[in-house]
Amino acid sequence: MLFDSPSSFGRAFRILSFGESHGVAVGVVLDGVRPGLPFEVEAIQAELDRRRPGQSDLVTPRKEADRVQVLSGVFEGKTTGHPIALAVFNENQRSSDYKAITELFRPGHADLTYDRKYGIRDPRGGGRSSGRETLARVAAGAWAKRRLAELGVTIRGFNREIGGLAGTAVDWAFVEQNPLRVADAQTFEAQKAAVEDARAEGDSVGGVCEVWIEGLPIGLGDPTFAKLDALLAYAMMSIGAVKGVEVGAGFDGARRRGSENNDPLSPDGPLKNDAGGTLGGISTGAPVVVRLAVKPTSSISKTQQTVTKEGEAAEISTKGRHDPCIAPRVVPVAEAMAAIVVYDAWLSQQELRDGSVETVTEWDWEALEGLIRGLNP
Amino acid sequence: MLFDSPSSFGRAFRILSFGESHGVAVGVVLDGVRPGLPFEVEAIQAELDRRRPGQSDLVTPRKEADRVQVLSGVFEGKTTGHPIALAVFNENQRSSDYKAITELFRPGHADLTYDRKYGIRDPRGGGRSSGRETLARVAAGAWAKRRLAELGVTIRGFNREIGGLAGTAVDWAFVEQNPLRVADAQTFEAQKAAVEDARAEGDSVGGVCEVWIEGLPIGLGDPTFAKLDALLAYAMMSIGAVKGVEVGAGFDGARRRGSENNDPLSPDGPLKNDAGGTLGGISTGAPVVVRLAVKPTSSISKTQQTVTKEGEAAEISTKGRHDPCIAPRVVPVAEAMAAIVVYDAWLSQQELRDGSVETVTEWDWEALEGLIRGLNP
Amino acid sequence: MLFDSPSSFGRAFRILSFGESHGVAVGVVLDGVRPGLPFEVEAIQAELDRRRPGQSDLVTPRKEADRVQVLSGVFEGKTTGHPIALAVFNENQRSSDYKAITELFRPGHADLTYDRKYGIRDPRGGGRSSGRETLARVAAGAWAKRRLAELGVTIRGFNREIGGLAGTAVDWAFVEQNPLRVADAQTFEAQKAAVEDARAEGDSVGGVCEVWIEGLPIGLGDPTFAKLDALLAYAMMSIGAVKGVEVGAGFDGARRRGSENNDPLSPDGPLKNDAGGTLGGISTGAPVVVRLAVKPTSSISKTQQTVTKEGEAAEISTKGRHDPCIAPRVVPVAEAMAAIVVYDAWLSQQELRDGSVETVTEWDWEALEGLIRGLNP
Amino acid sequence: MLFDSPSSFGRAFRILSFGESHGVAVGVVLDGVRPGLPFEVEAIQAELDRRRPGQSDLVTPRKEADRVQVLSGVFEGKTTGHPIALAVFNENQRSSDYKAITELFRPGHADLTYDRKYGIRDPRGGGRSSGRETLARVAAGAWAKRRLAELGVTIRGFNREIGGLAGTAVDWAFVEQNPLRVADAQTFEAQKAAVEDARAEGDSVGGVCEVWIEGLPIGLGDPTFAKLDALLAYAMMSIGAVKGVEVGAGFDGARRRGSENNDPLSPDGPLKNDAGGTLGGISTGAPVVVRLAVKPTSSISKTQQTVTKEGEAAEISTKGRHDPCIAPRVVPVAEAMAAIVVYDAWLSQQELRDGSVETVTEWDWEALEGLIRGLNP
Repeated sequence: MLFDSPSSFGRAFRILSFGESHGVAVGVVLDGVRPGLPFEVEAIQAELDRRRPGQSDLVTPRKEADRVQVLSGVFEGKTTGHPIALAVFNENQRSSDYKAITELFRPGHADLTYDRKYGIRDPRGGGRSSGRETLARVAAGAWAKRRLAELGVTIRGFNREIGGLAGTAVDWAFVEQNPLRVADAQTFEAQKAAVEDARAEGDSVGGVCEVWIEGLPIGLGDPTFAKLDALLAYAMMSIGAVKGVEVGAGFDGARRRGSENNDPLSPDGPLKNDAGGTLGGISTGAPVVVRLAVKPTSSISKTQQTVTKEGEAAEISTKGRHDPCIAPRVVPVAEAMAAIVVYDAWLSQQELRDGSVETVTEWDWEALEGLIRGLNP
Repeated sequence: MLFDSPSSFGRAFRILSFGESHGVAVGVVLDGVRPGLPFEVEAIQAELDRRRPGQSDLVTPRKEADRVQVLSGVFEGKTTGHPIALAVFNENQRSSDYKAITELFRPGHADLTYDRKYGIRDPRGGGRSSGRETLARVAAGAWAKRRLAELGVTIRGFNREIGGLAGTAVDWAFVEQNPLRVADAQTFEAQKAAVEDARAEGDSVGGVCEVWIEGLPIGLGDPTFAKLDALLAYAMMSIGAVKGVEVGAGFDGARRRGSENNDPLSPDGPLKNDAGGTLGGISTGAPVVVRLAVKPTSSISKTQQTVTKEGEAAEISTKGRHDPCIAPRVVPVAEAMAAIVVYDAWLSQQELRDGSVETVTEWDWEALEGLIRGLNP
Repeated sequence: MLFDSPSSFGRAFRILSFGESHGVAVGVVLDGVRPGLPFEVEAIQAELDRRRPGQSDLVTPRKEADRVQVLSGVFEGKTTGHPIALAVFNENQRSSDYKAITELFRPGHADLTYDRKYGIRDPRGGGRSSGRETLARVAAGAWAKRRLAELGVTIRGFNREIGGLAGTAVDWAFVEQNPLRVADAQTFEAQKAAVEDARAEGDSVGGVCEVWIEGLPIGLGDPTFAKLDALLAYAMMSIGAVKGVEVGAGFDGARRRGSENNDPLSPDGPLKNDAGGTLGGISTGAPVVVRLAVKPTSSISKTQQTVTKEGEAAEISTKGRHDPCIAPRVVPVAEAMAAIVVYDAWLSQQELRDGSVETVTEWDWEALEGLIRGLNP
Repeated sequence: MLFDSPSSFGRAFRILSFGESHGVAVGVVLDGVRPGLPFEVEAIQAELDRRRPGQSDLVTPRKEADRVQVLSGVFEGKTTGHPIALAVFNENQRSSDYKAITELFRPGHADLTYDRKYGIRDPRGGGRSSGRETLARVAAGAWAKRRLAELGVTIRGFNREIGGLAGTAVDWAFVEQNPLRVADAQTFEAQKAAVEDARAEGDSVGGVCEVWIEGLPIGLGDPTFAKLDALLAYAMMSIGAVKGVEVGAGFDGARRRGSENNDPLSPDGPLKNDAGGTLGGISTGAPVVVRLAVKPTSSISKTQQTVTKEGEAAEISTKGRHDPCIAPRVVPVAEAMAAIVVYDAWLSQQELRDGSVETVTEWDWEALEGLIRGLNP
């Protein structure tokens, strides 16, 4: 059903996103949800809180409560098997900040393309192309994540790089303790400085976000179009600011020889995981590792060359409260999209096999994790 | 219909792929085709011939005629507006080559995952995970390409890198003249040597394929999930051996500052094209540039560690006639997938605007191309 | 997206219905809406008011305000080309009325099947199987109707029969003036008496609803599965209480000879319209006539034999404020479903022909209407 | 995926039909098929043989072998879990018979509408609107029927009426022994005479086909749009010549009172089955009974008034070898469509409940059948 609506995603587990940045509400309808499952709205809210702005001086100071409301599909704390509509009503939007956009097209933003595509545009915060649309994704992903947790699948993300500076260690405990969501305390200070310097100069920096999906069964994904990594690439590239995606060794692997790139197989599973957890688009049971190229925030206060709505040359200096680096807030969104793809693939495999999904228990996860960490020395 | 079947792709222009590597036929059904359009089977065959093996000593010497047959949807050389079923009947398959696979799982291949996913597997050439499935994609893409040509859109691909060696110049005339489909005559010999060395050692190399989509209108793609670049990432990652995708500056862009990465706008269009032809997932009218990480061929004759169908340790040395580098044959497949995505997006935009699509004529394409070439100095 | 979710309907114009009878809200998301179209919420509200209960002493006295709220997709009174989410928040539900249902399965209702299907059930008013779900359909249909009106297509319905008593004349002015929505003033009193007698005896009656779709172009609908009449049959049978559908001469036609049943063609169009406006599933341009068999309301206060949730024999006498005849309230729902199907088919035909739809102006509508009236002498 | 292509049908079990009456082949792709299931091509062929023309002097004498060929998705007699493409290559088509159609539009046929819809038309036998397209349905339905048989579900059809003459007894043994597929030997002769008289006069007659679906579990179908009876209505009305559908008491029920129409429930199941096996669109476990209004064959040799392709008045007398009554050949097609809908609903329910479907064993089927027979005294 994916393309049926450009605002929908998924097949066995489907979501339909709605709502504009400054409209009445941003929401999502979850469909394909099994009946009788516990539904804790707190779990949804917890993920929404992770993506909320204003959490540190390294991201936008905008304050948004973003309280989610359940409109349907849940009865006495359990799913009914029917569409679950969730909505976050908008508040505290300073439209004045965006007044400029009505006249000028911001470089790096969808203003020009959006305007020409629809012939009509809600200039207040970019309408559907706004980062606020990710509220719908995070809410839906929170549910998928919750279900996957029950199935023994964990999804975690962090920023491997910020401003071109890459960390090496992966200390999960540290990730949620620092405002950049990086995993290596050694490189954090330098990365932090890079962001602060950029902001001081009215500029911005990008990053590379990495998501790990662990505890997967063998057999998720399809060998033709709906490859698990193809769906992940689709999901990740559909996040604003993401311009590249790679799985496992990715572009590095393209520069190796087959004998070096192939992961030898052993009775305990693959002996390394450069494939990033998939073979022929189907999960091997090893951790799936996805890396996202997050471009630097397009909204900067530095003066840039642009055009007016009428197509005349002009200059723009975006005011408003923007993130000098959006990567930290991309992490929960990337985790959410990963959860949606994987839960969908899990249900699809259940359907294909009338309920049974082959899980893998005997493998040496620690060893495999070690090999993943080895990917980017 | 995309996810509805893992073997289908597209929304306004839909394809359904069928057929196994060594089955009766590999085919595709094209749906959403307008009535009354000229249908030249030769145009389809020409693209199939480009992907055919056995065209040089740098790829597999396997000979396959791969003649396409039209089963429906065309009457007296014109489309009827109904499903067009195309089939290529299989021939000259040396199943014996693949006998080993029934017992051993090949590292880097879908053997293990496919077997566990379905519980049944046609061991002759990998069934649906075989490269032969791309016949369906190339046939469908050939039609899309043909339609796009009428609309002024051209899609061309080449290998930017082979075996870790990158070319810089982009000489389109040279691309179809060399067996590696590289665009820079300067680096061709070194790249050729890399492939030959690998083959001599029973090994293989990978590459980086680049596709350019030129002559696009403004407005293709959607700002939420169905972003043009997200669909391209999905399409490209669904090609076997592709493990990474980037658009425009991609991962490089993630290491820049916003002021450097943003493309300034001018009345003549963007002043550079690091965005790779999309803003907010919607085409800007500038050329779309996509890069694919193609892993080295997994089938190598070097001895590798693996497991048997029963999960016991074993060694394997893949015989058979394989490509020491698959990248040259990935090019036409990548072009085909790009054509399918773009034609689908074009029809979707036509639908959204009840027929009208805004084209861009006044921009300075030469200047923009220059800037694309500038992407990888 | 139709079957992708059992709660969705349509292809080019798509709706997704959500919400339970006694939940927080009942709503619908409209998708595939073109940008820049005027959106008057009053037009939606007007149709919702037509289906509202408590409008006469012949239907349930329940009072429900049913105010619709626009959550997304509209900016300054115009559509943005993005999903339009509409919600009606529930109020004034007397759950106590339904307490019995938790223990007893009501004959003629979905209680038994719903409970066994989902294993969980919101007993308050039947959850998704409640008549309140039609709020979503009427809201969506109101928009489709509005668009069709602009295109010269009118959709009107009335009850041809009530309690087995059939009217002959079709006086549209009278339809909205009487609580049964019948079109023949001559038979109204007798029909009214039939309803009152039934109610007096704690019983109910059924009816036959007829919908006319006029001003259609030639060419809507597809010759295979998506026949216009097949989609109408699907849409109508998806309305609770509807157990039969016929188009044109319907079951009468099956008892005729071909020479009698065929509609001869003339330069001015078909010379009669027993086909009911379609040939081979495609609209002829003549009015489409659909007839629905509406069963008598299942909720009656007469004592009936039933079973408990545990499957033991029991007796039930449904209290609560129910409609002695639901047919009058089915009319606006049937019109809404017809509008959704026809608008979807119109957009589909526009897509097939890249914008152009062939309209019919030269035909003698009066004559054709005459022939429709002639269907049930 | 249903509407995604007007040539596709189904959600969990999907089919895509292709091919024109006089094209190279008519075929169908089955998708959503589980892996490892036995696939007997003979079972498919057997159903195709039932719909084949030329089986008696009461239907068209045209002879067509209609041999089905499996192109993909089956390996060593078992399904692979991938798309199964089936094709029947066309032969023995006497196009000359249809030459007239290029100039004249046949009353009752899709000629006029098809021509105006597509702007292009394969005049040889009606292209996609030809009865030959049902080959795809019967082939797909044969597979679904086969699967359902394994699940204890049987689907059988017969003609309740021919030429306005209704039988009462339902003798299944007799159905396949007479060329009209009627179930009551008492009325057969009169019905046979009605068909022969019509043919003698160059005319045709219609009929009412009835399909019984027995052995269903509780819980198939959805309470909103995808009601089991709504899907059946859709499927049946998508068969050419069908202009009406009713479930259970259907139109009769609309003329009853609720106390009479409701089926009382008992620990052994419903005490009668006027609901026709569904409540709220969900199967009760009782037999589902569907009735189809089949119009008289439109192709008659009697002279009729029509128009030319240019819209001028003309007369037509269809030659060619047509069926004086198409109802006998509609029976296997109706069974096939019923099987497709029910198997799809079964898989959907399995998906909703992660594999488990609640079956009903303790009910008194004989008693229930008796009550169905009681429907039309």
